[in-house]
Amino acid sequence: MQRDRDSLAPFFAVGDARSIAAVWQGPIVRIFDPLEAESAFSHGLPLIQVEDGGEIQPGEPNLEGARCSLDSLEMAAGLARSGAAGGLVTGPVSKSQLYAIGFTHPGQTEFVAERCGIARDNAVMMLVGPGLKVVPVTTHVPLNKVSSLLSIDLIVAKALATARGLTRNFGIENPRLAFAGLNPHAGEGGALGREEIDLLIPALEILRDEGISVSGPHAADTLFHARARANYDVAICLYHDQALIPLKTLYFDEGVNMTLGLPIVRTSPDHGTAFPIAGKNVAEPGAMIEAIRLAADAARCRCERTTV
Amino acid sequence: MQRDRDSLAPFFAVGDARSIAAVWQGPIVRIFDPLEAESAFSHGLPLIQVEDGGEIQPGEPNLEGARCSLDSLEMAAGLARSGAAGGLVTGPVSKSQLYAIGFTHPGQTEFVAERCGIARDNAVMMLVGPGLKVVPVTTHVPLNKVSSLLSIDLIVAKALATARGLTRNFGIENPRLAFAGLNPHAGEGGALGREEIDLLIPALEILRDEGISVSGPHAADTLFHARARANYDVAICLYHDQALIPLKTLYFDEGVNMTLGLPIVRTSPDHGTAFPIAGKNVAEPGAMIEAIRLAADAARCRCERTTV
Repeated sequence: MQRDRDSLAPFFAVGDARSIAAVWQGPIVRIFDPLEAESAFSHGLPLIQVEDGGEIQPGEPNLEGARCSLDSLEMAAGLARSGAAGGLVTGPVSKSQLYAIGFTHPGQTEFVAERCGIARDNAVMMLVGPGLKVVPVTTHVPLNKVSSLLSIDLIVAKALATARGLTRNFGIENPRLAFAGLNPHAGEGGALGREEIDLLIPALEILRDEGISVSGPHAADTLFHARARANYDVAICLYHDQALIPLKTLYFDEGVNMTLGLPIVRTSPDHGTAFPIAGKNVAEPGAMIEAIRLAADAARCRCERTTV
Repeated sequence: MQRDRDSLAPFFAVGDARSIAAVWQGPIVRIFDPLEAESAFSHGLPLIQVEDGGEIQPGEPNLEGARCSLDSLEMAAGLARSGAAGGLVTGPVSKSQLYAIGFTHPGQTEFVAERCGIARDNAVMMLVGPGLKVVPVTTHVPLNKVSSLLSIDLIVAKALATARGLTRNFGIENPRLAFAGLNPHAGEGGALGREEIDLLIPALEILRDEGISVSGPHAADTLFHARARANYDVAICLYHDQALIPLKTLYFDEGVNMTLGLPIVRTSPDHGTAFPIAGKNVAEPGAMIEAIRLAADAARCRCERTTV
């Protein structure tokens, strides 16, 4: 069985059986409690059903499908929050379809944070590849808004949540955080921008006082080659593409999105919906497999660290 | 001889013999005309001397050294413009030292463009690695200025100069240009920024009408992995780090900066001054060797295409 070959913990799908059957050829076994997942797995993919998804054509996004995605996300987040599931792995969604049905969060990460009662700034999107972990301090915002959204408080909050998350989910006791500058050459001493001087250096000072291992601000373009990556456990980046370009350039088929700072474990494959190949059985499953593995590893790491 | 082993065309240094001797252990042969370089090479590194560089301590930048760099750049650019040299290869400089002596250009590229009588917008900085060529439309400017500096005209001018430069210097007859979006997910249809809709799509339309092969705007984070790179000859990026992060992540020790749009060939190794290791004989010469090779290849390509 594939799950054994990849030595993955038991998992189950949350969604609409007809929709899943349209893009997946194996058998599906409906379950009613996460505890049934392990035994159900020998008969097919265990599924907890949400409301019917309506008529689904793979690769043709519609509002019905967006509602089904949101219902599934809501139920799966609830199962993880209640402890019924050890973690939550979300698939990619069409954001424009979600926005069209009134979804007001920038992305699934912010939605899950709200459902967990955590302020957005304390929920951290971390992207994980085999040799690189990156955190973007700002995420799905226009590039020309990035500078005005940055603050010392925001950078410190994201960094603290990142450091704690690396300890909690990966067991790294003293994580090393490397900070990218915002501007070319990290501002070249102020000549090419002042955010490094006005925001990053003071933020790093605060973090050092908190006992966090920090370095930077580094010129972003020299932070991601192999020798540089050996010097840190996670790179703190200031905007979406500064973090995602190196991650996807190096690990396009293996990238996993993990949310730190939540009471629950949450991961997601770091790729899009790929509607043009939906249902054609040619998708590369590597990132989804890694997302499931990483969620299970993090859940185990948290269990081992639990004190009563 | 190293030059033969790397099958490099004859070249010569322009600078101060004492300064070069402080960071290089081989013999130096003073020449007075570029034509002497080839025969001088069997005795040492051919050098055309500029004014004395004063007291030089490797790794300790000073104003005297900055003046010597600028004099050397001026003379070398003049030799290339006159046709006495087939091209110009510049070493890294300390920009803050250059600014301190009153250098008003953002970088060497803009300086050389001015000396060649070419408008800045038509001089294009292209970074070249073994499997990736990238052009940043804006270069050494603060990130929060990028959006306001972009215009349809600027994007079109840079793209046309890039397309012509790939033909002229690399012999690529119909170069394929892939454009990165400015915003996360290339703006997600306007939800995450409008530069893609307001600037890039109209610019691509104009370029298509000019017969240029263009694609995009693409989400920048998915543009640089191996499968994506197979679909274009050059990626047009909108800001410094969008271009430099993927290039240096993949090819840190081999990146070459080539200026397109000039009447002369100009390349440069794509690394900084590395003052902490100056004179210690541990620098990685790969990028400089590639810069010399690329300049010579481009000069040959231009000769072969010359029509009278």
